[in-house]
Formats: sequence, structure tokens, C-alpha cells
Amino acid sequence: MSDSIKTLIESRVSTGLYDSSHTLSDDVVNELVRLATRAPSAYNLQNWRFIAVRSAQAKARLKSAAYDQPQIMDAQVTFIVCGRLAAHEGLAEALQPSVDAGIFDQAMLEGWVAAAAAGHENNPNKQRDEAFRSASLAAMTLMLAAEGMGLSTGPMSGFDPLAVSEAFGLDEKDLPVMLITAGYAADENWPQKPRKPVEQVLEIV
Amino acid sequence: MSDSIKTLIESRVSTGLYDSSHTLSDDVVNELVRLATRAPSAYNLQNWRFIAVRSAQAKARLKSAAYDQPQIMDAQVTFIVCGRLAAHEGLAEALQPSVDAGIFDQAMLEGWVAAAAAGHENNPNKQRDEAFRSASLAAMTLMLAAEGMGLSTGPMSGFDPLAVSEAFGLDEKDLPVMLITAGYAADENWPQKPRKPVEQVLEIV
Repeated sequence: MSDSIKTLIESRVSTGLYDSSHTLSDDVVNELVRLATRAPSAYNLQNWRFIAVRSAQAKARLKSAAYDQPQIMDAQVTFIVCGRLAAHEGLAEALQPSVDAGIFDQAMLEGWVAAAAAGHENNPNKQRDEAFRSASLAAMTLMLAAEGMGLSTGPMSGFDPLAVSEAFGLDEKDLPVMLITAGYAADENWPQKPRKPVEQVLEIV
Repeated sequence: MSDSIKTLIESRVSTGLYDSSHTLSDDVVNELVRLATRAPSAYNLQNWRFIAVRSAQAKARLKSAAYDQPQIMDAQVTFIVCGRLAAHEGLAEALQPSVDAGIFDQAMLEGWVAAAAAGHENNPNKQRDEAFRSASLAAMTLMLAAEGMGLSTGPMSGFDPLAVSEAFGLDEKDLPVMLITAGYAADENWPQKPRKPVEQVLEIV
């Protein structure tokens, strides 16, 4: 195993305390999202959207919608990672570049669009599952990409999704799935918390 | 940025064709799950479970529950990645090692357990969201860990969750969220499919 990814996974901690004296450039924010979107999604739906909350004013709005957790003010940026409902409606557009690149043909695109529509139309539970799955896969990729850049991250599920949607004028189909703080950690963070032994969570059959 | 994680993220493809002439050891399967469970989860719930499907007989059962997708037979292993419902019920046990390690105290454990119970009890939607979120974070970590070991993976959402549960006798609270094939890729796989431009999915505020 490459020591590098193993070390990143083993050393990542969910960071709650940031050193607010640093700044992050637009380029870094863009690069984190570019890498996050290399995550897989069903049918390559890419049913995610990211709001990078970086200005003091926007941070204050987000903090209010996230039970006043202070790390949102101190972290260089907090990403609102959204999964999109009714994602099948955008699938043809999401796949067209794969046809243009010659990876598969228009008939296959149409077959996938029909299959996704058949599965997702009138099935709000499946749409929600898909939003949570895709957004979470992208979120994990973003966190590990950030570790690789020497940055720290903190995933947060403690927020009011409706309040976040209202504070940032989100489309009703963009569902906030996670917040991820990112930036430069302060010195006093907790270590990674112990995990269950593998034999408690794995069965080989 | 470390070239290593960036390269892994950029070069990962969702593999559909495997070279069935290889084998994977128990040690590798264990190591993949050990690293996957370093993923974060709300409250450190660790509400995931992995079934590594590796014998020919078990593969055939899984294939039947996954629309007969042939890569399940050819891949060295397919993980059924489950998220656990009512995860708050197992939180005290999941957190005890953090208290034992002196990371936080018993009072904080009890506070977290009470908060998680208040949020999740009698809230099946939240339980399901949490299962999808935690399992997907672990699944993405597993895929990138596998890339770091020179292995290929293929995430699959095309399966019948009830049929999978029945075929493997899953506890009714263990919800199959994704399948991940893993092993040695054949030569003929598709390249990574193009993604939307970052500016279509990112807003900086």
C-alpha cells in the first residue's frame, strides 16, 4: 500500500478548532471541489452542489443555521455539500460530455436516462437516498483531497437543513447533506477517536 | 498538494471488468475495512457493517440480488456496505473506547448519547439519512484505500436491497447502501467519465 493514502486516512481527524489567522485562495477552494467531483455517482449523475462559505457575513449566516457552532467563523471556509433531488432530470446533460468524448453512444445515454427516470420519478425516498449517497461520496473525497494539501477538515451534521436552505437561497431540490469546515487546524484538537475492531463490523463469506 | 492522493482521485475509474485469475487474501480484505472505518460518522456512531462476498457460492447469491451483474463473479471480492438504522442505540458502546483512552469523559459520552437519542428516536427518516451518509463516507474511503494498494473498485447501486438482506440474513436494522466490487481490473474498462465544470457546481460566498 502506498504509505501516502494510508497515512492520510489514519491521521485525518475531525477538526473543531481552527487557526483563523490564515487565508485560503479561490484556487484552493476550486481545486478541492474539482477533486471532490471526481467521486463516483450512480449513472454519473453528479447530483451535487457546493457552496463555499468564506466571507465573514456568510459565515455568520451559516453559524446561525448550525446551532452557533463557532468553528464556522474560525475555519477558512465551510462547504455546504448538497445532494440534488430528482437528479434524473439533469442526467442527459450530465452524460452528454461522455458521448462527445466517445466513451459511449447516444443510444446508451438514452437508455441510462430512461432507466434513471423509471427508478427515480415519483420515488422521493430513492431521490433522497441518492442525494445523501452522492453528496457523501463527494464529501469524503473532498476531505481526503484537503488532507493531501496539508489542510484539515471537520464534517458536521449538526445543522438545520431548512434554515441553511433559507439563509443561502438554495433551490428546493438542493438538499444540504453535510457541512465541511476546512483550513488550518489550531494545535489543541482531539486525536482521532478509536474505532471498533474490524471483526465487529466485517463478515467474510 | 501531494501528487499521490490527487493522482489516485483523478485516476480512479468505476471498474466493471475484472481479471478473475487473481485472488485477494483475508489480510487485504481486513485492511480495506480497517481503513474504511477510519471515515468520520456523526458522534463517531460507526453505524456501518461490511459483508465481504468472496466465495463462488456467496457471489452467485449476491449476483441474483443485483440484476445478474456479471462483475460480481469476476471481481475478487464485493463488499456489501451497510448503514445501521437506530444507530443511537449502539452509541454508548461505540464511544466507550474514547472515554477509556481519555479523549473525553463519561459525562460527555452521556451527553452525546442523549443528544443522538433525542434526534434519532422515532425519526426513521433521520435514521435512514444517517445510515446512507455514514456508509457512503466509509465506502469512499474504502475505494481510495484500495486504489492506494493498486486495486480497482466499482461502486454499484443497482441491486435489490431486500433481496440482498434476505440472501445474507442481514439484521433488519442493517441497510444495504452500496455494493463495491474490488480486485484486479481487466484491460478493457472505460476511462473516467467527464465531470461538469467546477463553476457549474460551486458558488463561493
